[in-house]
Amino acid sequence: MKKYYLITPGPTPVPHRVAARSAEPILHHRTKEFGEIFKAVQDGMKYVIKTKQDVMMLAGSGTSAMEAAVVNTLSPGDHVIVGSMGSFGERFIKICEAFGVHVNAIREEWGTPVNPAKIEDALKKDPSVKAVLIQHTDTSSTTLNDVKAVADIVSKTSAILIVDSVSGLGGEELHMDDWEIDVLVTGCQKGLMTAPGIAMVAMSDKAWAHHKNAKCPRFSVDFSIIRAAIKDNETPWTPPVTLFLSLSEAIKMVREEGIENTWARHKKLSAAARAAVQALGFQLLSSRPANVLTGAILPAGFDGTLLLRKMLDEHGVSIAGGQEHLKGKIFRIAHMGYMNAFDLMIGFGALEKTLTDMGYKLPEPGKAIKLAQSAL
Amino acid sequence: MKKYYLITPGPTPVPHRVAARSAEPILHHRTKEFGEIFKAVQDGMKYVIKTKQDVMMLAGSGTSAMEAAVVNTLSPGDHVIVGSMGSFGERFIKICEAFGVHVNAIREEWGTPVNPAKIEDALKKDPSVKAVLIQHTDTSSTTLNDVKAVADIVSKTSAILIVDSVSGLGGEELHMDDWEIDVLVTGCQKGLMTAPGIAMVAMSDKAWAHHKNAKCPRFSVDFSIIRAAIKDNETPWTPPVTLFLSLSEAIKMVREEGIENTWARHKKLSAAARAAVQALGFQLLSSRPANVLTGAILPAGFDGTLLLRKMLDEHGVSIAGGQEHLKGKIFRIAHMGYMNAFDLMIGFGALEKTLTDMGYKLPEPGKAIKLAQSAL
Repeated sequence: MKKYYLITPGPTPVPHRVAARSAEPILHHRTKEFGEIFKAVQDGMKYVIKTKQDVMMLAGSGTSAMEAAVVNTLSPGDHVIVGSMGSFGERFIKICEAFGVHVNAIREEWGTPVNPAKIEDALKKDPSVKAVLIQHTDTSSTTLNDVKAVADIVSKTSAILIVDSVSGLGGEELHMDDWEIDVLVTGCQKGLMTAPGIAMVAMSDKAWAHHKNAKCPRFSVDFSIIRAAIKDNETPWTPPVTLFLSLSEAIKMVREEGIENTWARHKKLSAAARAAVQALGFQLLSSRPANVLTGAILPAGFDGTLLLRKMLDEHGVSIAGGQEHLKGKIFRIAHMGYMNAFDLMIGFGALEKTLTDMGYKLPEPGKAIKLAQSAL
Repeated sequence: MKKYYLITPGPTPVPHRVAARSAEPILHHRTKEFGEIFKAVQDGMKYVIKTKQDVMMLAGSGTSAMEAAVVNTLSPGDHVIVGSMGSFGERFIKICEAFGVHVNAIREEWGTPVNPAKIEDALKKDPSVKAVLIQHTDTSSTTLNDVKAVADIVSKTSAILIVDSVSGLGGEELHMDDWEIDVLVTGCQKGLMTAPGIAMVAMSDKAWAHHKNAKCPRFSVDFSIIRAAIKDNETPWTPPVTLFLSLSEAIKMVREEGIENTWARHKKLSAAARAAVQALGFQLLSSRPANVLTGAILPAGFDGTLLLRKMLDEHGVSIAGGQEHLKGKIFRIAHMGYMNAFDLMIGFGALEKTLTDMGYKLPEPGKAIKLAQSAL
């Protein structure tokens, strides 16, 4: 008998009541019934991201929403600053460059957050900069940016701040309006506990003013077209109807817990996970670790790819490895969305067992799972 | 007690076994398990559209796939011909214009197919034309284009033929490779009986050669990036995992029926629907009606909007009305995807009853449902 456990940073586990709704009979999307679902999701998203602005909802991946944010606020030739601390920062750079936007890339080591002072300097050196783009959290480097500090700097300039919170949403504190984030990019498949397929973007009044002059070509993701349909509780094109049903249920769950409590749960889980990683004898990957996942550096020469394969094959437990230059050298364990201390106990239980089987000597067997349990 | 019946051209009813798979526990998309699902969908799509080419699969609506087809094969300033016979033809025009592509629009009345001779003339007059864009079927005008005749013309030139078969696929005969269609655009939510959220595009070698020189900016829908991931049975960005599970099941159903038999079933249903519309005393909207839905012109002054509202409110039966200049003047009944003669009997049963309730005198009460039954 095999039981499977998904403890990876997205897609994350989908609660049964959320998944079940996606199997309901299909609704036509131009009906009062779907309109009510759409409205519940629209209001729910405003609650989750703390905004009064409309939330544009796209059929697509987080990457399509990152692209939509760029093409709806910028023009070819515009100057932007991208603060990159991982693979999603690199993705923002590629997207901007694909549309002829000139990027000043401020790169940090994977594990180091973007330094707000460097953004401030770069903005002073080039006052023509139209936008600053950063991640809220970058799962590849398991790092949390100080979004508020960056927003405090950018909001004093004519530039807009574009924040990718696809992986941060729900797990990390976020106040879109109060923090003066101009463009918030997110998706349904991580903290929001829904199967992937819906991506969202919300914009401040300042960003909407930029939108008017944004010349990057676009059609299906044009926010003017998408926003115009919101008043009728619709999307202009056929939406992923069943995922909207799921998402409406997931948002109900977030409301039941209360978003502040959701943040607090992630904080507690991440503290336990960080302690457990250190109890295994490993260093944390990040100097400013995210609350939605934890990265650990494996001892030099240890085969991280084999570790993950054995955990999955022998115990059915799936955690994430490193990407690009970190491949095989780290592991990443998620505590994002529909996760609790028992999930951490499973993850660290499989880690302790497999590390031992591979000949690694645990400093104190059982300590990591006890620390995971402490988040109960 | 209310039972609901969706007899509209998309989203179309989702069979229980297809819907149920979307509620399965979420799979991580970088796993062997998902790779097998991806491969089954990839092979299945080749079977359904009759091609040997790779099928690019996007998280998105049909509209995003139409846009993806344009930006992956064209450059700003290119000349194209759009044959438009309904709202989706108009959408192709808007997409091209949004990306700076110069459109020669050949417009037909809604209900008249695109005339291949007009395409031929336009190609002769402007040999710089890079692409011809048409719909396979346009649901707004319930009309089927003669795609093969247009392909015979375009394939003799340097231009490529881009065909939107979002609504035609599965219901209308289609041989992508044999007919020499260069770019085939489609989606999962109509003939393929899956909830909306996956869109697909396949391209001929000729279209791939155009792709190399296509300068429209793009990133998340760049076919070079998407195609490169197919060999690993992956998408570059997070795919709508649960919809892939559903789609793999729907494709199994199409294989069980056999695609040629699927086409034949739609042909039989459409013949019955056309006869039934005429038995109600109405004219067909189209001179070349599609096999996936049937449009009927209501008598002048008859309130088509009220007809549809009453059918839904009093009998739970949802059919479609007219769009734009046809709003309130026509109705459209679908026989697309997971539909059979009983669905037609329900549709025409509700139509006969509601028309009579509204004071319309049926030429021969009961005749339309008998004709619908004849498709059994």
